[in-house]
This record gives sequence, structure tokens and C-alpha cells, in this order.
Amino acid sequence: MSDRRQPVLGVLGGGQLARMLAIAGAPLGVQSLVVDSSSDACAGQVAPLVVADWHDHAALGEFAAKVDVVTFDFENVPADTAHWLAERVSVFPNPRALAAAQDRLAEKTLFRECGLATPEFVPVDTRADLDRALAVTGAPAILKTRRLGYDGKGQFRLRSADDADAAWAALGAQAAAHGLILEAFVPFERELSVLAVRGRDGEFRTWPLTRNWHTDGVLSLSLAPAPDIDALQPRAAALARTLAERLDYVGVFALELFVKDGELLGNEMAPRVHNSGHWTIEGAHTSQFENHVRAVLGLPLGDTGARGASLMFNWIGELPDPAPLLRTVDGHWHDYGKRARPGRKVGHATVCAPDASTLLERAEALAQVIGWEQPVAAVREAVGI
Amino acid sequence: MSDRRQPVLGVLGGGQLARMLAIAGAPLGVQSLVVDSSSDACAGQVAPLVVADWHDHAALGEFAAKVDVVTFDFENVPADTAHWLAERVSVFPNPRALAAAQDRLAEKTLFRECGLATPEFVPVDTRADLDRALAVTGAPAILKTRRLGYDGKGQFRLRSADDADAAWAALGAQAAAHGLILEAFVPFERELSVLAVRGRDGEFRTWPLTRNWHTDGVLSLSLAPAPDIDALQPRAAALARTLAERLDYVGVFALELFVKDGELLGNEMAPRVHNSGHWTIEGAHTSQFENHVRAVLGLPLGDTGARGASLMFNWIGELPDPAPLLRTVDGHWHDYGKRARPGRKVGHATVCAPDASTLLERAEALAQVIGWEQPVAAVREAVGI
Repeated sequence: MSDRRQPVLGVLGGGQLARMLAIAGAPLGVQSLVVDSSSDACAGQVAPLVVADWHDHAALGEFAAKVDVVTFDFENVPADTAHWLAERVSVFPNPRALAAAQDRLAEKTLFRECGLATPEFVPVDTRADLDRALAVTGAPAILKTRRLGYDGKGQFRLRSADDADAAWAALGAQAAAHGLILEAFVPFERELSVLAVRGRDGEFRTWPLTRNWHTDGVLSLSLAPAPDIDALQPRAAALARTLAERLDYVGVFALELFVKDGELLGNEMAPRVHNSGHWTIEGAHTSQFENHVRAVLGLPLGDTGARGASLMFNWIGELPDPAPLLRTVDGHWHDYGKRARPGRKVGHATVCAPDASTLLERAEALAQVIGWEQPVAAVREAVGI
Repeated sequence: MSDRRQPVLGVLGGGQLARMLAIAGAPLGVQSLVVDSSSDACAGQVAPLVVADWHDHAALGEFAAKVDVVTFDFENVPADTAHWLAERVSVFPNPRALAAAQDRLAEKTLFRECGLATPEFVPVDTRADLDRALAVTGAPAILKTRRLGYDGKGQFRLRSADDADAAWAALGAQAAAHGLILEAFVPFERELSVLAVRGRDGEFRTWPLTRNWHTDGVLSLSLAPAPDIDALQPRAAALARTLAERLDYVGVFALELFVKDGELLGNEMAPRVHNSGHWTIEGAHTSQFENHVRAVLGLPLGDTGARGASLMFNWIGELPDPAPLLRTVDGHWHDYGKRARPGRKVGHATVCAPDASTLLERAEALAQVIGWEQPVAAVREAVGI
């Protein structure tokens, strides 16, 4: 295709994150090759797709031979697969970092080792463990699978100790395979996330903290930069850096945080580009997708400063009519090319503006047309203008 | 691939413009299908590629059946091909508009009909015509092929009437096939371009005027918004609109303009997205590529306002080391994935900033590292700070 060799990025998982990585890689001259078990994985619309499951060593071996580096769109790729590939080709983030983020118990233990407080947590393997754990955390509390949970899946909220039987009925069967963990429910004031990136040479950067709003456990709105973060930003950045260095992490990751009494608590870490960083595509000097590609390929990282203020709307289940957003000044549409399905992330939109006040005007005009007045009212309250 | 039908954009020509159209279409949920006679056309790295020449009706018929609309990356697609396709599928811009822009004589005649002055011009078919034409234009003058010229190709500059034999020796053989035109050389003060877009419903927008610098007939730098355009912007926009409406034009086009004694003169029209609009990818609320995709598919157009100030560097022949640009704040790299070759456009970079002063600081720091001090000094002079 060319007499100069263009780098090829291998991506495990072919969802919207892989799709946006491939789109971000193209201007850098990077070609992507995606692996997914489904032939209609949406990243296959923008990059060549290898259809294979995580245990198909013949297909994965061929894939590894074609790429310069392997990364993830999906953190639940089996650790075995990541290790198998890492013996054949560079894999970033490294499988040990991936494994730490795959297990809520290992993750929260790591947070504490790095100086990041967390809500109280206790591992739960049996019904009797659950009672003992409740005595530690108190109620309300949340029982979660240690592995394979995302977007509120694999979770049961206990309002009081009386809900223990119901919680066990819902998740007890998964205790043997995935392990469970009981976490104290923290009545937090705000949910923030910090996106961070570390290069192969240790270069480290964070984007401005993002404020997030969830609906039914799924992200619905992200505002960046989050308001009132002067004191929190350097702390979040230092914690993210400690964590990244401890794991010898390479690439982008997200750290989800709660703010309670002005202090940061660690909720979870996503060892990949993250939904709460989608605003960076148009709202930052360098997007999370581009910096992830740069990091794993050993290129210099780009500046992570914000270009003004941004608000991201997540489209869950189905896309609204795009026309109102397309008419919004500095409004950006992202259709992932996926089938509509309840609860599925099918797209997002980002509205940008030079400042928070102009952003609110644009976002509220859009919200009125698409029926998002109530969630966007929470954003105005957060901005406090 | 999906139960909802995603629109498919057909693109004739598979160069960097098709590549950037495909990348811009993806977030809109638009799939692209590209036709090029070369199997290593660089757009084929980001979209499926049909390898066919412009007269392969079997392949073009199959292509037409797969796409919703056809557009161009390349304005020299034969008019016959455009007409043939237009009988089978929607083609935007329409073949008549394409034909007007393919012929320098038709184009300049149209400019004058629309109220846009041009340098003096005279068609030339024979050696004797050339002498008569020189008597009209005076010298210096430029002899050009009427068709198939771009980036300074198919041109001969006459310093005086004594150069007529040399000019005829260089281009006379092409008189029969393509026709020739002699144009007066205008000692212009500035070269500007206006990028414009017109939707299927007649919605019309222009981006801020861009100031361009050429080296050896090829664009090297574009600054946007151009300085000192308060009086020129509305005139350029009105002229572009008249032209677009006269041609029933749909999509993006560029109008290259000279400024002499504060007046606009029409140089040429490019019936497609244009090199001088590449800054819009990061420097405008909506890029020329995205608005072209929106226009030809009948979607609402996006706002064309600038986000601060931008300077585009064109990489001709080969790419420089990307590292200095990748380290520049709000610097954006565009590698087209093409083989290096003297004179070939292989990539570009855009540096953005909130204002012209910050832009100059960033651009000058970059220019020092990559040896572009002299061209960037011209930009500072133009900005006048």
C-alpha cells in the first residue's frame, strides 16, 4: 500500500471505542485492525475486522503477526488471551494492569495502596460472608460481582440488611465464578472522572476533571471541565499518576471518583478510553482516542487542555432525530452505526462553547427540542450560573 | 450490518479528499464507498475501495447501485462519466456545475456573469491566437490549458511577448485536446479563498475567508480567518452565493480570489472540498468535509464559524518528522497514507489557538524546529502584530 511502513494498531473488541480509536488513528497515518466475535461489530465499518473469539489461537496468531501493537476496546478480554498475545506482540496496557482493573477487589485494594480512599468494601464468597460484610459496611450497600460488571450490570443495591436474601438470590449464583464484593453506599455530592494517559516513556498527562451524571447506572451527561475543581484537579492527577506508575500503565485510563465532604473517593478504574472522555474529541486539544493511539505506539503525547467548555449527551437504546443537534453551533454528532436495543450505547453528541455560560445556552436550547430539560437543569445547577 | 439503513456516500476519486470525507462521514453514521483506478488510493485505507477506471460501466453500475449519492474527490472526472452516473443515482455537485469548473474559459465567463471581476483573459487555439491574446492582456501573462490543470500544472508564465514561442512549445500541443487560455498576470496584494457550502434545500453558508500562500504554484500555508476581511467577507459570500445558485450547486466549493487595490478578482473555482479549507477540521465549528457530507445527503448544514485562529502547513513531497507538531499545543497532524513523491501532497498539519497572537507564538516555535521560519514570517507580517 505504501513504500513507507505505516504502523498497524490491533484492537481487541470492535465496539464504538474501537471505532473511535480507528477514526482518531487515521490522521496519524495509523491503520487499525480490529478483532471481534461478531461480524457486525460497528468498528468494522471503519477498519478491517477479524471475526474470532478470544480462544481462537489460529486467528489471534494471524492477527498478532499483522499488527505492531495490541490494545483493548473492551476490558473484559480474558486475562489468558491478553497474556497469550503479550508473548507474541506488544500489548498496552499490559495484561497485569488489565487484570487489576478487571477485579473490583484488586482494584480497590490498589486504590488504597496508592493513597486513594474508597468506600468501605468486603469480599463476599458465601451467604454467611454477606451478613458479616453488612456488619462492616452498614446499609445501604451495593453487592457487586467482582468481575465482568459494567454500566450497573451485576449489581444489587441493599437498602437495609433485610435485603440480604434478595441480593443473594440475584447474585449468589455468580459468587463461585466471579466472586462478589459488598461496597458501602456513599451519599456522595458529585461524581467525577479523571482521564489520564501515560506514554511508553513514562510521559504522563491528565485531562480536566469531568463531572458525570448517571441514569439507571448508565452515564447520561458529562460536563468538562467540571466546575469547582481547583483543589481537586492536582490531587486527582497525582493519584492517577501514582496508580499508572505502579501498574506501568501505557495508554489512556479513566478513574471514576466520588466527592464526599470535599474529599475524593475511588469508585472504579476503566483500563481504556472511557465514555466520560468522549467530550475530548472536540473539546480538548488532543482527544483521549488520539492520545491513546499515540501512547501505545510510542509517539509524543498531545496537550490535554480543554478548548472551552463541553457537554456530552449519551444516546442510550436509540438515537434521537439528529437534526436539532446538527443545527446547534459547535454541536457534534456521533452515530456508532449500531442497531437500536434497550440500554445499549448507540451514540453520543457533544456541544462545545468558549465558556460555560454560552455552553448552557446552547445545551438548553437543544434540550428543549429533544426533551432533555430536566437532566440539563442539573448541569446549570452544577455550574451555578 | 444494521436494521436501520445507514446512508452510503459514493466518492469518485480516492485521494486525501475522499479519505477525509470518509473520516468526517463516519460519526454521522455515513458509510463511504470510493472508486479509484489505483488499488493503493489512500482513501482505501479508511473505506471500501472499488478499483475501476472512469469508463468501466460494469463496475460503475454496480457502484451506483450500492450508494445513495455520488460526489467527487477529483474534479477532472470526465463529464461523460458524471452524466452517465447522474442517470442512475443522485450526483452532487451536478454534472453541469462540474463541467463549468472544469473549463477555465467557462469558469471565468461565469464569474463575470455573476459580477465577479477577473484578470483579463482570452481563449487561445492557435499560435496566431496567442499573439492576438497577448495584445489584449499585455505581459506578464500566463498561458494555461483550459482543462485538466491543477496545482500550477499545465501553465507557462510569459514575462514578455518574446516568450510566446517558448510558451507555445510548452503547451501548444495541448491546444487541440484541451484548449488554451491566456490570462493577464495580476500583481495582486493577497491571495484569499472562500469556502462555501450549499444544501439540497438551498441553505447556504460560507466559512471565514482564508489567506493562502503558494510555493511553486502549490499551496503551502493557509491562515484563517484571513486578517482584514471585514469589508471583503460579505462581498465574497454574496458572490459565492450567486455562483452557487446559478449552478444549482450542492456541496462544498472553493473560490480562489486575488485582492488588488482592495477589490476581489476571481481566479478559479474548485467544485469540491479544497486544500485551503483543511483548517476547518479543527478550526471551525463544522469542517468542510462534514458539511459536504451533510449537504449532499440532505442533512442540515452546520455552523461555519471559526474556533479562534488556525494556520495550516501543507506537506509536499514528503512528511517532516511529526514529533515537533505532535508536541505543539492544539497542533493536529494529517498523514494521508501516501507514498512520498516530489510535488505530491502527502499530508498537512493545522495549528489552532484562541487568537492570532497565540497562534503566531505556537506556529513560530514549530517553524523554528522544522525550518519553516521564512514562510511563517510572511504570516506574521500579514497579521501585522
